[in-house]
Amino acid sequence: MMQYKGWEGFVPGKWCDDEVNVRDFIQRNYTPYEGDASFLAPATDATKKLWQIVCDLTKKELANGGVLNADTKIISTLTSHGAGYLDKDLEKIVGLQTDEPFKRALQPFGGIRMSEGALEMYGYKLDENVKEIFTKYRKTHNEGVFDVYTPEMRAARSAHILTGLPDAYGRGRIIGDYRRVALYGVDYLIQKKEEDKLAMSGDMTPDKVRNREEVADQVKALKALKQMAAIYGCDISKPAETAQQAIQALYFGYLAAVKDQNGAAMSIGRNTTFLDIYIQRDLEKGIITEEQAQEFIDHFVMKLRIVKFMRTKEYNELFSGDPTWVTESIGGMGVDGRSLVTKTSFRILHTLDNLGPAPEPNLTVLWSKRLPVAFKRYCADISIRTSSIQYESDDLMRPEMGDDYAIACCVSCMQVGKDMQFFGARANLAKCLLYAINGGKDELMKDKVTGKPMQVSPEFMPIFGNDALNYEEVIAKFDNMMTWLADLYVNTLNLIHYMHDKYSYEALEMALHDTKVRRFFATGIAGLSCAADSLSAIKYAKVYPIRNEDGIVVDYRIEGEYPKYGNNDDRADEIAVWILKTFMKKVKSHYTYRDSVPTTSILTITSNVVYGKKTGNTPDGRRGGTPLAPGANPMHGRDCNGALASLESVAKLPYEYSRDGISNTFSITPQSLGKED
Amino acid sequence: MMQYKGWEGFVPGKWCDDEVNVRDFIQRNYTPYEGDASFLAPATDATKKLWQIVCDLTKKELANGGVLNADTKIISTLTSHGAGYLDKDLEKIVGLQTDEPFKRALQPFGGIRMSEGALEMYGYKLDENVKEIFTKYRKTHNEGVFDVYTPEMRAARSAHILTGLPDAYGRGRIIGDYRRVALYGVDYLIQKKEEDKLAMSGDMTPDKVRNREEVADQVKALKALKQMAAIYGCDISKPAETAQQAIQALYFGYLAAVKDQNGAAMSIGRNTTFLDIYIQRDLEKGIITEEQAQEFIDHFVMKLRIVKFMRTKEYNELFSGDPTWVTESIGGMGVDGRSLVTKTSFRILHTLDNLGPAPEPNLTVLWSKRLPVAFKRYCADISIRTSSIQYESDDLMRPEMGDDYAIACCVSCMQVGKDMQFFGARANLAKCLLYAINGGKDELMKDKVTGKPMQVSPEFMPIFGNDALNYEEVIAKFDNMMTWLADLYVNTLNLIHYMHDKYSYEALEMALHDTKVRRFFATGIAGLSCAADSLSAIKYAKVYPIRNEDGIVVDYRIEGEYPKYGNNDDRADEIAVWILKTFMKKVKSHYTYRDSVPTTSILTITSNVVYGKKTGNTPDGRRGGTPLAPGANPMHGRDCNGALASLESVAKLPYEYSRDGISNTFSITPQSLGKED
Repeated sequence: MMQYKGWEGFVPGKWCDDEVNVRDFIQRNYTPYEGDASFLAPATDATKKLWQIVCDLTKKELANGGVLNADTKIISTLTSHGAGYLDKDLEKIVGLQTDEPFKRALQPFGGIRMSEGALEMYGYKLDENVKEIFTKYRKTHNEGVFDVYTPEMRAARSAHILTGLPDAYGRGRIIGDYRRVALYGVDYLIQKKEEDKLAMSGDMTPDKVRNREEVADQVKALKALKQMAAIYGCDISKPAETAQQAIQALYFGYLAAVKDQNGAAMSIGRNTTFLDIYIQRDLEKGIITEEQAQEFIDHFVMKLRIVKFMRTKEYNELFSGDPTWVTESIGGMGVDGRSLVTKTSFRILHTLDNLGPAPEPNLTVLWSKRLPVAFKRYCADISIRTSSIQYESDDLMRPEMGDDYAIACCVSCMQVGKDMQFFGARANLAKCLLYAINGGKDELMKDKVTGKPMQVSPEFMPIFGNDALNYEEVIAKFDNMMTWLADLYVNTLNLIHYMHDKYSYEALEMALHDTKVRRFFATGIAGLSCAADSLSAIKYAKVYPIRNEDGIVVDYRIEGEYPKYGNNDDRADEIAVWILKTFMKKVKSHYTYRDSVPTTSILTITSNVVYGKKTGNTPDGRRGGTPLAPGANPMHGRDCNGALASLESVAKLPYEYSRDGISNTFSITPQSLGKED
Repeated sequence: MMQYKGWEGFVPGKWCDDEVNVRDFIQRNYTPYEGDASFLAPATDATKKLWQIVCDLTKKELANGGVLNADTKIISTLTSHGAGYLDKDLEKIVGLQTDEPFKRALQPFGGIRMSEGALEMYGYKLDENVKEIFTKYRKTHNEGVFDVYTPEMRAARSAHILTGLPDAYGRGRIIGDYRRVALYGVDYLIQKKEEDKLAMSGDMTPDKVRNREEVADQVKALKALKQMAAIYGCDISKPAETAQQAIQALYFGYLAAVKDQNGAAMSIGRNTTFLDIYIQRDLEKGIITEEQAQEFIDHFVMKLRIVKFMRTKEYNELFSGDPTWVTESIGGMGVDGRSLVTKTSFRILHTLDNLGPAPEPNLTVLWSKRLPVAFKRYCADISIRTSSIQYESDDLMRPEMGDDYAIACCVSCMQVGKDMQFFGARANLAKCLLYAINGGKDELMKDKVTGKPMQVSPEFMPIFGNDALNYEEVIAKFDNMMTWLADLYVNTLNLIHYMHDKYSYEALEMALHDTKVRRFFATGIAGLSCAADSLSAIKYAKVYPIRNEDGIVVDYRIEGEYPKYGNNDDRADEIAVWILKTFMKKVKSHYTYRDSVPTTSILTITSNVVYGKKTGNTPDGRRGGTPLAPGANPMHGRDCNGALASLESVAKLPYEYSRDGISNTFSITPQSLGKED
């Protein structure tokens, strides 16, 4: 079984018995660490020098308007570029997206217009030959989607009731199991994929043919991955034999992914416990020191910090910047009760000291009450000093996801190498409520031809008259409008993901998944608290519609008080729960692409601002154009019963109806938590 | 209803009432012609000069080794080339595949290796940039197919039990309704396609999304078609107003098809009755003479004669040359009892006099006993003098296909613009019988690794011992082997056509079809008479197996006589019928791509020679490597009971089991038909 030199010293098990099973390897071989941070080593001179190079380049990039250099001619593939370095002699972990640091790659498979637009925004010009290829000979994801959009989909997109759809950027949210590259070496992974393909027999239905072709493309991607490593003088065909090789191989896997794809979230998985096994082995052999171990991790993290994509203005607006969401999930508890915290969990957080704070990689601690105390203290310490750690509830996710899941983007959990997600942006339910009142006419947009309010949904019966809105009537119409919206939303995503698979398939990332994966069909909800408060106002106060000259309700006059979501008041909170459950049931009633599992999230962390801009006045008194609340947050300033009551309201949202995650953005002044250390 | 100038003078009907219905137009407007050929006009001077240019170029091409010139860099699309002429001043119908006559276009979407190989065969070198595009950025049909082939499919292909599969050349056999371009103009066709797309609502399943994308691509192709015509200074956005415009528009439709696709059979449909309506209108208006009418047809046919593709050596071997199968279907009877023969049916046959005999276009008369006598006489006359007419039984096809079908390639009938075909080459049933005897080990091929006979099917139980073969035992094993072969065959075709649609979709041709088309899944049988005779020998004589050192039966010793297919002897003929029906039932039991209708054909006209080469000695006494009989023909020389008995045997094959056609190649010395004129 232990046929590779790289496996010497490891406890064997299923993982090396003719299958790919990283979790089994981890469980049999990792060393939980209950101690404190005192063992950690500071940055080496090499690390400091390299980081200075990054800082200098960052300054130059800023001075240059946000982009330092960009390819206009070389189409990014795994093997398109020669080796690139920050400083070849100093780097312990090598590999850049292009042949120069901070030079952004040209990735046109998602959409040539986006590539062109992004380049032009920064003063570059797309090569004419590349443009011709991706116009005449190679269709892109974006072109494919717009070829098949229905007029209704386009209208809903323009009106922003469906919003942020991944039709002009990569869907991301797919995490390759990059650990496999280190543990098995690429040749073994190719062999397993060939075996999987051989086993895919029976009637050659389109699904079967597509699956077989995808595996063929995965094998090609793995072969290219080996070539890519060879460009840097590395052989990753066999299992890694040292910690440095393991980190390097894992990083090459990830690097290949970001050369291949510029997804909105290119998360990296859950790697520290895995890597710790290699580091521990080398430390025990005495072939590396703690300083070296930390240096490997520092250099690895440094590379993750300089992942960059060419983005369009629209993208940056939607995401309020240019995040890459290199999320690394840390810690958590094993299902056997052992903590998954290792020394390398500390080492990676320690990069925030050695290299200073940074938003990327998005270091995410999978939090459990039962995590080792010393680790929890260390996390708190780092959080206070750097504000650079994200926390997620491992206790909530573990029962369903086991102990080898990771977070993609900010809250989407998936089992590494076993699950993937079709990212689906959001439906704006606050706006949906306005459509219910106006019979599907947009409260802001005008039809370009007639100049009249734009009819986005079919012409449903609106609410007539100027009496106070009747709750039962509004609820019935809202329910009806959600039926329409859920249908449209799911079908819009169905075709987007069909086209993404067809024209911008993530062959390398999927090569690092099991061949038979579980797929999540991730929808999302925006404006939940606004919609809930609006319905609460209609139910508990008196809300009078105010119409414009076209008869469209464009504002509301509220008489009286009403209970607001975010105060642990069941009257309002139950409405929020009802909205979530009702919408999700409607979503689930539809065909979803590739037998995917419908989920939803309530997690607009920044884009709630953009969504709010496109949403008129709402019956809760919110002014048109002002932000919606982020994620599942109560509307700003309305949670008046204290922090706990606010959290209690959010906590009522049933996780099983929002499996892709619920976010609550919450600022706490340190004093409010007490004065002792 | 009659909103276009081009429609003036036509009898209105459904065809102009907001639908596309060319048959309705023809039925309401055509003028049957019962007269003789005396009205026909000779070639004009312009025709003679132009044809001389063609003849000169043909000589040069031959002298140059078969290809006069070829594009190595310009990728053929509808608009890739400037206008090309034989002689601009003389041509009444313009348009070439490239910008020069006899210059072959570069069509790499089906497979870049084929493009490269074909060019190299004639001393040309494929442009590196084109090669890179179709290697790195644009997958081809051929690459897609080979990505998904199973090892079993590859083995069956290498062993030639499945043979001539369209995985390295375009499937062809799709006939655009080119008449629509003339009758409706492109703008109307675009509008109807847009309406169709709008109506494709409901759940966005992969099928629905694919269908929507195809219509989007069809619309793009129609727009490109207009541009292509504009390159020649022609506006085909509106209906044609004269006969010349109608022929020109129709030809542009066809020209676009051959610029877009290099299918094995690029047939043109059934156009003469349609075009006659325009010619008749112009003649009646007095704006053209018969000489001019004939000149238009002569120039049109001249263009069809010089359709050329770059083919590989393998292709030419398979098809015994480089046919283009520009099949034009002529005549036939209407379902209302009127003959569909018009003066233009004569005019097109008359091109064989005006331009001399030629195999292309493949002029095919849809024969009925009830065709006008004068037309039948004219056909016979032309046939005797030129040997350039193909005949097919309209009386056989009309009951199922109506009166607006046409022949694709040599015998595949389909309703023009309403049906299409997934061409499927052939299964070699003579070889299948050998596999039944040898348990799926090939009688000729060796495994490259072991040097032992290649196992192609799963290891079925062979026939043991050296006793005379037992008929019941052989039949049982043959039935079993046909089950395997039909399964493999259908699934091989399923994936081939999936990939053809994905990477080499015939957007322009399909734009000239109804959006909802009927698809035939065309399988084919080779070696029918050889298999039937072999089984007859086993049943009625004594056939002893002769084994080689590996125990494989490689030859047979026959004791006694046996009845042979082709002599109107039910004992043999019933075996042939049983084989056809049994194999076809097995084919029909499978999933076929896109809900297509499984059909089969028995029509190897030339490739029977190649198939025979790959088939060892057979139990009927046929020597290995010698040709199988073409199509449904009896084995050469075995039909000893005269011509009628031979035809009777063939006629027993049930058409409903061989809907895609049965061919019988039959030479008759004129004397055997009698001595009177």
